[in-house]
Amino acid sequence: MIGEIIAIGDELTSGRILNSTSYFAASHLYSAGHEIAAMATIGDQPATIGSALKRSIERADFVIVTGGLGATTDDLTNEAVAHALDRPTILYPEIFEKIKQSKSFKEMPSLEKLAWLPSGAEILKPGEKIAGYMLVYQGKPIFFLPGVPHQMRELMLDRVIPRLATWGDNTVSLVKQKIFKVFGLPEPLIQEMLSSFEKSNQELRIGYYPNAAEVHVSLTVRGESHAETEKQFQQGENTIKNILGCCIFDEEGLTLENIVGNSLREQNMTVALAESCTGGLLSHHITTVSGSSDYFLGGIVAYSNGLKKKLLQVKQLTLEKYGAVSRETAKEMARGARDACGADLALSVTGIAGPGGGTPEKPVGTVCFAIADKEKCVAMQYHFSGNRKIVQTKSAMTGLDLLRRHLHGLDFLESGW
Amino acid sequence: MIGEIIAIGDELTSGRILNSTSYFAASHLYSAGHEIAAMATIGDQPATIGSALKRSIERADFVIVTGGLGATTDDLTNEAVAHALDRPTILYPEIFEKIKQSKSFKEMPSLEKLAWLPSGAEILKPGEKIAGYMLVYQGKPIFFLPGVPHQMRELMLDRVIPRLATWGDNTVSLVKQKIFKVFGLPEPLIQEMLSSFEKSNQELRIGYYPNAAEVHVSLTVRGESHAETEKQFQQGENTIKNILGCCIFDEEGLTLENIVGNSLREQNMTVALAESCTGGLLSHHITTVSGSSDYFLGGIVAYSNGLKKKLLQVKQLTLEKYGAVSRETAKEMARGARDACGADLALSVTGIAGPGGGTPEKPVGTVCFAIADKEKCVAMQYHFSGNRKIVQTKSAMTGLDLLRRHLHGLDFLESGW
Repeated sequence: MIGEIIAIGDELTSGRILNSTSYFAASHLYSAGHEIAAMATIGDQPATIGSALKRSIERADFVIVTGGLGATTDDLTNEAVAHALDRPTILYPEIFEKIKQSKSFKEMPSLEKLAWLPSGAEILKPGEKIAGYMLVYQGKPIFFLPGVPHQMRELMLDRVIPRLATWGDNTVSLVKQKIFKVFGLPEPLIQEMLSSFEKSNQELRIGYYPNAAEVHVSLTVRGESHAETEKQFQQGENTIKNILGCCIFDEEGLTLENIVGNSLREQNMTVALAESCTGGLLSHHITTVSGSSDYFLGGIVAYSNGLKKKLLQVKQLTLEKYGAVSRETAKEMARGARDACGADLALSVTGIAGPGGGTPEKPVGTVCFAIADKEKCVAMQYHFSGNRKIVQTKSAMTGLDLLRRHLHGLDFLESGW
Repeated sequence: MIGEIIAIGDELTSGRILNSTSYFAASHLYSAGHEIAAMATIGDQPATIGSALKRSIERADFVIVTGGLGATTDDLTNEAVAHALDRPTILYPEIFEKIKQSKSFKEMPSLEKLAWLPSGAEILKPGEKIAGYMLVYQGKPIFFLPGVPHQMRELMLDRVIPRLATWGDNTVSLVKQKIFKVFGLPEPLIQEMLSSFEKSNQELRIGYYPNAAEVHVSLTVRGESHAETEKQFQQGENTIKNILGCCIFDEEGLTLENIVGNSLREQNMTVALAESCTGGLLSHHITTVSGSSDYFLGGIVAYSNGLKKKLLQVKQLTLEKYGAVSRETAKEMARGARDACGADLALSVTGIAGPGGGTPEKPVGTVCFAIADKEKCVAMQYHFSGNRKIVQTKSAMTGLDLLRRHLHGLDFLESGW
């Protein structure tokens, strides 16, 4: 189906807030097989809202409208809809009862406004504290969603995408979707690896969404029966897993930081870090997880060679013979961090983030890692492209991925991208 | 003036790329005193581009169009414009000469396309390697800018905003703008501090843009003569500086990381860090600056109490008596980091990022800092609101700001927000 998206709010047209909800909607609708012909962002003026809505519904098969559903005076979507589509607002008693029971109602009687919706509105999550409804106009669905990003996302995924999947033609069309998070392969390579499979299967669609140093691969299958959809989906899932193997680190919505943390906790192990070029970024990633103090002891950011020697016991000879960015130095850093922090496991990273410091033998983007446990110490060398920030990000995330691979007994890749 | 913004590209309507250029344009146009009535995002279809453009130019006083100016087959803006506005494309010989001289032309003769523009197009930066032109249609300016964010931003600031400032009415209208970067005060408080001044001065406009833990305050003055604009601007600048004082850390487009780094370099000092709740984030911020190895030696991420004792010489008694999150522990951490790293200056941070770990006396968001130099060691306690990520970000940036204040001989605030 062809759709349009309308985002409403003066905070968007004045550039005070970046519109990320339309982007979220577009990317998920696209993955589900729809096409977005146009996205509009307009201010809180009822006349503008009305005419934008009428124009969109004439051109498109469906329309998503976000924002302007709240209780304050600049929330004007419902009035605009009532007027433009000739659907006068009526009181929805079941909503009003809920509002009357809430604590805030006494202080803010204006909340009653939330119970007045255009006639014909079908509440998307009845009984729950989340605004959002669907109207059918000239046989086409219009979804009105809150502008608050997390509420809008919830309704998009739980209500809008499933409703659209079965809309319209009489054949029952079913959609099943899954996201595979991939690390260690660049997006163009993943596309190339999966392209011939995708081309030979018209029923499924594969989407690619780079996300910092990760790539999120979506598999969407649209079948005409439950059994057929399941079969196609299973085949698609198996193929993607066979081709991308252990570069897929998640299928359940977890982050790399969560996965590494869960494995450390399960194996009852502690970890310490020795960072040079990432300057603390890898430590920080680990500590974004609440409760990471269960397994993360700490780390040493040895940015100068002096500190590599003093705090991590890296030998002067090693620095002279192999350089600060070398497998040899990385190994001594990892062992040094393990000893200094008394951890079961230690990871080190040392590299040239640029823009300065590169040489023909070791260009900017050369990064060495080592992992030490009580038995052995293994080092790896990578080469990453990109500016300073990108090299630092890729290095930190690769460090996390190496911990994942070590903890799961997987091979290390040694390449870069 | 009332304007509209049109962003063109299938990568936007398919949700592959988040549209940040329209946001940038809207926020700067708004600050410059214009109003954006609508923003549209459309795919690479010439008919859609043409009709969107015609509709916008009928309604608005000016239009900004971004994207679709490149040399590939899906760059269709120029053709769409030529057709919709009846301005057939013609060869611009001065552009074509430049292209013929470039190395890439031999391999990519399709680059010639860049020299064919709608007749009447006025190149925005003639002689430079950046696409972008202005067309006047029915007396109204339409600006066509590249979709590449940094190129689009350059042309918006250098060409579009100045051209619009003097457009239209015959009175010479001048616009002068400046951004003040503020740290340590929450946005609503800054608004309150400046609101009465803004209300009493119709010629100037103050904008507020929260940016991570910072707030960027823009001052825009629109006068009818050069002298009047200058006078109003000077008055506005003086007032803002008087009211916000040393919470303004930059007026020249530098980051807090740059400013701290420059001061350390000028004073020929080295710095080391001891981090607990920020888990390396502060170290990482310092190392985002290329060349930071000149002054940043490194740091110790002492996430566990064991490492605070082992690597930073924090006393068991101090931890027991005052707790890990206390001015006393912060002081020992700062002294310990200074000694361990052999730095001139050391900063420590220890706090409760949450969601767990809070107590009635020390709720989530309590964060202590200390700065040690060769003479003394000073500690401060703050309280920050927000989730784990926000508390970590505010803590790391406050650490940087404390270094700035120490290096510039300014007072420390001790509050939080």
